[in-house]
Amino acid sequence: MLLMREESDYFGVIEIPKDALYGIQTVRTIQNLSFSGRTLSQYPTYIESLGMVKKAAALANQEAGVFDEIIGNAIIHACDSLIQGDHHEQFPIDILHGGGGIGTNMNVNEVIANLANESFGYPRGSYSPVHPAEHVNASQSTSDVCHTAIRLAIMKSFQPLFKALDQLVVVVKAKAGEFQDVTTIARTCLQDGMRVQLGETFRGYSQVIKRRVLALEDAVKKLHSINLGGTVIGSGVGAPKAYRDRVVSKLCGVSGMELSHRENLYDAAQNIDDLARVSSELRILASCLLKLAKDLRLLSSGPEAGFSEIQLPAVQAGSTFFPGKVNPVIPETLIQCCFQVIGCDHVVQTTLEHGELGLNVFEGAAGANILDAMVMLEKALTTFTEKCITGTEANRERCEELANSLIPVVVELKEKIGYTATARLVKEKGKEEIKNMIQNGGNERDTSNE
Amino acid sequence: MLLMREESDYFGVIEIPKDALYGIQTVRTIQNLSFSGRTLSQYPTYIESLGMVKKAAALANQEAGVFDEIIGNAIIHACDSLIQGDHHEQFPIDILHGGGGIGTNMNVNEVIANLANESFGYPRGSYSPVHPAEHVNASQSTSDVCHTAIRLAIMKSFQPLFKALDQLVVVVKAKAGEFQDVTTIARTCLQDGMRVQLGETFRGYSQVIKRRVLALEDAVKKLHSINLGGTVIGSGVGAPKAYRDRVVSKLCGVSGMELSHRENLYDAAQNIDDLARVSSELRILASCLLKLAKDLRLLSSGPEAGFSEIQLPAVQAGSTFFPGKVNPVIPETLIQCCFQVIGCDHVVQTTLEHGELGLNVFEGAAGANILDAMVMLEKALTTFTEKCITGTEANRERCEELANSLIPVVVELKEKIGYTATARLVKEKGKEEIKNMIQNGGNERDTSNE
Amino acid sequence: MLLMREESDYFGVIEIPKDALYGIQTVRTIQNLSFSGRTLSQYPTYIESLGMVKKAAALANQEAGVFDEIIGNAIIHACDSLIQGDHHEQFPIDILHGGGGIGTNMNVNEVIANLANESFGYPRGSYSPVHPAEHVNASQSTSDVCHTAIRLAIMKSFQPLFKALDQLVVVVKAKAGEFQDVTTIARTCLQDGMRVQLGETFRGYSQVIKRRVLALEDAVKKLHSINLGGTVIGSGVGAPKAYRDRVVSKLCGVSGMELSHRENLYDAAQNIDDLARVSSELRILASCLLKLAKDLRLLSSGPEAGFSEIQLPAVQAGSTFFPGKVNPVIPETLIQCCFQVIGCDHVVQTTLEHGELGLNVFEGAAGANILDAMVMLEKALTTFTEKCITGTEANRERCEELANSLIPVVVELKEKIGYTATARLVKEKGKEEIKNMIQNGGNERDTSNE
Amino acid sequence: MLLMREESDYFGVIEIPKDALYGIQTVRTIQNLSFSGRTLSQYPTYIESLGMVKKAAALANQEAGVFDEIIGNAIIHACDSLIQGDHHEQFPIDILHGGGGIGTNMNVNEVIANLANESFGYPRGSYSPVHPAEHVNASQSTSDVCHTAIRLAIMKSFQPLFKALDQLVVVVKAKAGEFQDVTTIARTCLQDGMRVQLGETFRGYSQVIKRRVLALEDAVKKLHSINLGGTVIGSGVGAPKAYRDRVVSKLCGVSGMELSHRENLYDAAQNIDDLARVSSELRILASCLLKLAKDLRLLSSGPEAGFSEIQLPAVQAGSTFFPGKVNPVIPETLIQCCFQVIGCDHVVQTTLEHGELGLNVFEGAAGANILDAMVMLEKALTTFTEKCITGTEANRERCEELANSLIPVVVELKEKIGYTATARLVKEKGKEEIKNMIQNGGNERDTSNE
Repeated sequence: MLLMREESDYFGVIEIPKDALYGIQTVRTIQNLSFSGRTLSQYPTYIESLGMVKKAAALANQEAGVFDEIIGNAIIHACDSLIQGDHHEQFPIDILHGGGGIGTNMNVNEVIANLANESFGYPRGSYSPVHPAEHVNASQSTSDVCHTAIRLAIMKSFQPLFKALDQLVVVVKAKAGEFQDVTTIARTCLQDGMRVQLGETFRGYSQVIKRRVLALEDAVKKLHSINLGGTVIGSGVGAPKAYRDRVVSKLCGVSGMELSHRENLYDAAQNIDDLARVSSELRILASCLLKLAKDLRLLSSGPEAGFSEIQLPAVQAGSTFFPGKVNPVIPETLIQCCFQVIGCDHVVQTTLEHGELGLNVFEGAAGANILDAMVMLEKALTTFTEKCITGTEANRERCEELANSLIPVVVELKEKIGYTATARLVKEKGKEEIKNMIQNGGNERDTSNE
Repeated sequence: MLLMREESDYFGVIEIPKDALYGIQTVRTIQNLSFSGRTLSQYPTYIESLGMVKKAAALANQEAGVFDEIIGNAIIHACDSLIQGDHHEQFPIDILHGGGGIGTNMNVNEVIANLANESFGYPRGSYSPVHPAEHVNASQSTSDVCHTAIRLAIMKSFQPLFKALDQLVVVVKAKAGEFQDVTTIARTCLQDGMRVQLGETFRGYSQVIKRRVLALEDAVKKLHSINLGGTVIGSGVGAPKAYRDRVVSKLCGVSGMELSHRENLYDAAQNIDDLARVSSELRILASCLLKLAKDLRLLSSGPEAGFSEIQLPAVQAGSTFFPGKVNPVIPETLIQCCFQVIGCDHVVQTTLEHGELGLNVFEGAAGANILDAMVMLEKALTTFTEKCITGTEANRERCEELANSLIPVVVELKEKIGYTATARLVKEKGKEEIKNMIQNGGNERDTSNE
Repeated sequence: MLLMREESDYFGVIEIPKDALYGIQTVRTIQNLSFSGRTLSQYPTYIESLGMVKKAAALANQEAGVFDEIIGNAIIHACDSLIQGDHHEQFPIDILHGGGGIGTNMNVNEVIANLANESFGYPRGSYSPVHPAEHVNASQSTSDVCHTAIRLAIMKSFQPLFKALDQLVVVVKAKAGEFQDVTTIARTCLQDGMRVQLGETFRGYSQVIKRRVLALEDAVKKLHSINLGGTVIGSGVGAPKAYRDRVVSKLCGVSGMELSHRENLYDAAQNIDDLARVSSELRILASCLLKLAKDLRLLSSGPEAGFSEIQLPAVQAGSTFFPGKVNPVIPETLIQCCFQVIGCDHVVQTTLEHGELGLNVFEGAAGANILDAMVMLEKALTTFTEKCITGTEANRERCEELANSLIPVVVELKEKIGYTATARLVKEKGKEEIKNMIQNGGNERDTSNE
Repeated sequence: MLLMREESDYFGVIEIPKDALYGIQTVRTIQNLSFSGRTLSQYPTYIESLGMVKKAAALANQEAGVFDEIIGNAIIHACDSLIQGDHHEQFPIDILHGGGGIGTNMNVNEVIANLANESFGYPRGSYSPVHPAEHVNASQSTSDVCHTAIRLAIMKSFQPLFKALDQLVVVVKAKAGEFQDVTTIARTCLQDGMRVQLGETFRGYSQVIKRRVLALEDAVKKLHSINLGGTVIGSGVGAPKAYRDRVVSKLCGVSGMELSHRENLYDAAQNIDDLARVSSELRILASCLLKLAKDLRLLSSGPEAGFSEIQLPAVQAGSTFFPGKVNPVIPETLIQCCFQVIGCDHVVQTTLEHGELGLNVFEGAAGANILDAMVMLEKALTTFTEKCITGTEANRERCEELANSLIPVVVELKEKIGYTATARLVKEKGKEEIKNMIQNGGNERDTSNE
């Protein structure tokens, strides 16, 4: 049987599991504000970032004399355990909730307070000597805590994504080298065009991804400007000057990141355009990856009734229906991942559009969708690189055959005798006739037509 | 030299071309609220619908004794000229403007007032005996006038679109019949699949379009419920009961449509979900047409290096670069049209999302984007049907060749010997070996492998 | 220590937990095609629906003589346990994966095969006498199985959502009655307008939700037409006629739903517009709920510096920063839910846009996002109705004060003396002067200005 | 009567107005590929940019010996007239058409060829000695011509938009200064919060616009990398090396811009992510402007029943219904402009998503929507700045009243006696009691409660 303890607030008494590190505010938020089915527990980088923010605040509060060293040290110690990844199961609130993220902040405050009080020998739920609101949250508001922590979390989550993207670029570039001597056909409007080296097509893929990664990196860098110390709307009311002067440098120390205050803290509370920019870059990246995945699918279509220029590695049985059929399941998984990322961006842009006055209370939804998109992309790309791109091979014979189609041959003819003469020739002669003519080097006759 | 007249309001005196049927409110709206570059003049069905609404209002006002018969007849006569399509160049206001469409309403009021006064021998700009606000707009507000007229305009614009869609369905269905005896290959995940009649694919196209047309028709039908008489927010304040009781039946007579009052006029002013539904249907229709256009592009890809199952009619030179190349320019035009329709829907849905309180003041933007989408689709589809689908032909030899690819053949084998045995066979034998084996009827040997 | 068993396929040998009901195809899918972090286990209605489809197929196969009664009964019994909600933890594949949902189908096939073989005393992983592909999947393809099951799942998920919406309509309507005698101010363009009964505003809310529920219901009803028996692309190849003739009526029996075959099964495989329509309706519904939530937030803004016409029930402490402040946390949670639903729709529409040829392989992503949206909405709305709307109260004094603002008073004046005279009066007199004048009944003087 | 001339191509003979500078390819494109109702004529910056590209190409061709000086000079002279803004009415093709923009390129080629031939005394339609494809289009393809010209056009169109944005920032900043001494209330979740200077809110607006302008400028700068000389897919086939080496520097000279070749020309043809980035920035900018416009609307709501902190200048009569009511028509116009810009971005992102293989044939649609968005924003913002922001005034008395609401007062109390004590006090005492208590400086009693 689950042992329970009681906690109370202005709204009444509530039962909480005796061992829970979270408290009544967390439980009320769960009861009132849950719908997404995803909990803060599932966002470890966000919990760690919240731990860092709370630790930096405690350090600054300590130095500013907001509370004494003993209280401060207990809080700091509790924060450290969150930063190390402990107790993540103690964050059961829904990742998306109203009130501008107050549930998130209170969940963190309660867990830290309980840990701190426990270190003094007090039971969970006692909230003394360390109080969630008065000590753990001292000099802070939900607004600046969550604003700052979500940006830290995005910057952290960018690292593995960046690595996955970087690896993809390396592997695609290597493929470009490998396929440089493979001549095939280029198509425009899906119609036969001119000869091209298959490697050039792949070099194009590596270029665009590299460029989008740099752009995404640039967008993420902007998040280093944060508003901790601005409290609710940027004015810093509720936080002593000595705290405000210290807290960002404390956070630099705690996080190992080069953070700075936003130029204008009111602006920081009003606007989440920096998040929207990150999300837009994720969307554009996803759209470029979508093209890559769809191109691979098209270029490997066949084996007989499609383009069949490349062969993707078979990773599992393709169908319950067609024995021996191998489907491009990994590109299709990436395609669906890109769809989801585009959907996440839609949510983020909508949160921006519906912002108002001094504080965008929907920032948490923007942050969660960005983290979702990043984690999904990182997972899908890692498999895509390792299990698909790496093993992709060119069907060299097929490519050569395609490169010798009529239209590419005609393009070369045009180089020699001009557009009008070639066009007339194409109109007048049968396809095979021209092809033979050209292969027999019969250019003299052609120019006489001009 | 352009002769000018002067008009004035609380904000001052303004110069207006002497011959203009519009007046000072129109000019102020142009000066203050223009950005889209598109004017009401370019929306003839909307102008005609506004004329109908004003005529019905005048008839009802007359009967309700709001103004006398002489005034009323002059207004009605002026409305008739708008309904007949005259004076459309007299609606120079931007189709999108703030204030919930007041510019649109005032432009119409002014034109009608000037026409009416002119019929009494008074100069343009005199606004007496017929006053734009007190007579032409009597018992009405911008809100119910524009709400009603935009719905009329959409219902009118649906007619030619419906005809274009209907014609498309007929032609695609005929193609389905024509291609019924063409056996080709079906692909899933773009990989070779099983045999299929090309006609079945085209029958699928005709079915989905037919279904979406019915759904769109259903959505448009909902617009027959209108709120004329509800004035600003649905309460009908400002309109005498005798007018409110008559105005919808008058509008039925004027428009020849079976219109009725919305069940709740407050709801009608608050919510534009009926427009959003029409727009959603346009989007889904556009997405289905997008698939059709992309499929045609893919199925006609080649001639040698693509699928090449069908041949689209050549309608113009394909490229400045490749003599003889013929691109699928008409499907690509339709694709871009579908993109624009999807973009229009995005605007419409955004206007819905940003509605508030008793009146969605962005309804005009929703209406204009729906009209744009309808007109674009109708134009693009008419050409698509007549110049592309009608002349599309099957490449019968190529289709037969594709139908005899390995995988379709293996599918038939599986029918006979089961999945596992077939899968093993495909793994062990070379492709050509199996193909020959099957073509030689060697099924006995295969089952021994099971 | 976790005991393992070995399974193998063409790609090699793999270790699987000895007790797992799933097998090698499931594990390969997890290894190759995971990114979303959400698993099939989290979609109980979908698992149950898949169980129903498999049961119906087994019944039809039995009668068609595809396999004998003993095999059939074992499969049917296994399906029953899935339908009852057992073994949901045995569906660990990612809800979104490439290959058109083959992982989903194979996961189900393997679990059922293992349960069936176990009922004969064979160990998990033996796949004999009941084979996942040859028996459990007999006469089926991933395409028609998933197409049908996802539609069943959506129809099932609609039930609790419908109930939540219905309850919301009832409660909002009751509030409309309760607020019918509260006169307040209506605003247009956020500017003071005319008097209105607060109840009318709420009646508008109940009307629009009711209408959207009916439209959603209509869209969901269309899903009763399914394609089971059409196998991959609608041709039914791979399924004997006797099976195809029976399977839908079997599924009617199993599910208790009135299902029928789609008119054209090729069309069913090609097009997912029926899903897109459901999703569009969810989006429009979400946008209307968004308006309601935002209106409540605005109408309850204050207490002193806002509109303050209504009072939302306080459900938890509003802020870590402002003691005593109570935020509209439940409407804000609903707002974020609506954002997510709109994001889900964006994904669904994108899957429609990227469909191609004979089979839309992204249907699974569409289905999952619709289920997500439905479940989220149901949760958020239940709380919204019970904890927010039910306890919402009118601030009657404040409403009365607002109703006596100048503009509503002027509107009444206009009713008496006309637009032009009133407009002049407003321009010439001070606001208080007019207000007093009107309250003193001084209408005579006004009309002299006309 | 309109005099006609005849022109012919492989598809037959066509009648063209005798004086038309365009020719048969243009007319065929109009007949086959029109739907949007917008013509190239309406995009003067694009026509000028196309003129510049053609001039640069002619200069490079001349030096490369592709054609002689006489032909070259005639072409160059014709280009100059387009660059000067002449003959814009000679570009009647639909701005959106299939085939990757070939209609645009041929329209320009034909106009230039006809002008050039006319300078030699030959009639329009003669196409000799200067031929549209062989001379005007020499060494070029539609692909690199349109790619380059659309980017030039966007860079040109950015100038007036930048100026409008810059002016807006200046004026908003000035308002921030003007309102710095106005203390008012800040709200979070629309609930009363703390005191704030109205100037801080406006400074936030100026900051975010400034930031987005810089980001947009950064995105536009990326467009300076172009692919002229890459011909169709980046290989440069069809263009002699001497031409390719010169053409970009020629274009720098012609345009006065610092242009350079893209690092990889294949990549340039494959990907239009640089355009998508510009469009994303326009969208984010639009969303930030949307917030500004909606905030102004909300802050000026009233006069009596709203927030009424600021007063927007009245620019025209607000309503046909409410005499004296002045609506925020200019912010509402900006809001609708932002909706349209967001819709344009949706189209642009869709073109990116649907790109494929070596050439994104939907680039023209992306470019047109970006130009539309820029022009619309520039127009709407100019009016917004000049006619709305400039005249916006603070309602100082109302702001002071709001600043003295209970909650802001309580926040100050919390600063002195802590969260818990204040919360208890708020719970126990009536609002007015606390307010009086605080105004009387009764802090001693409060702390005794802690």
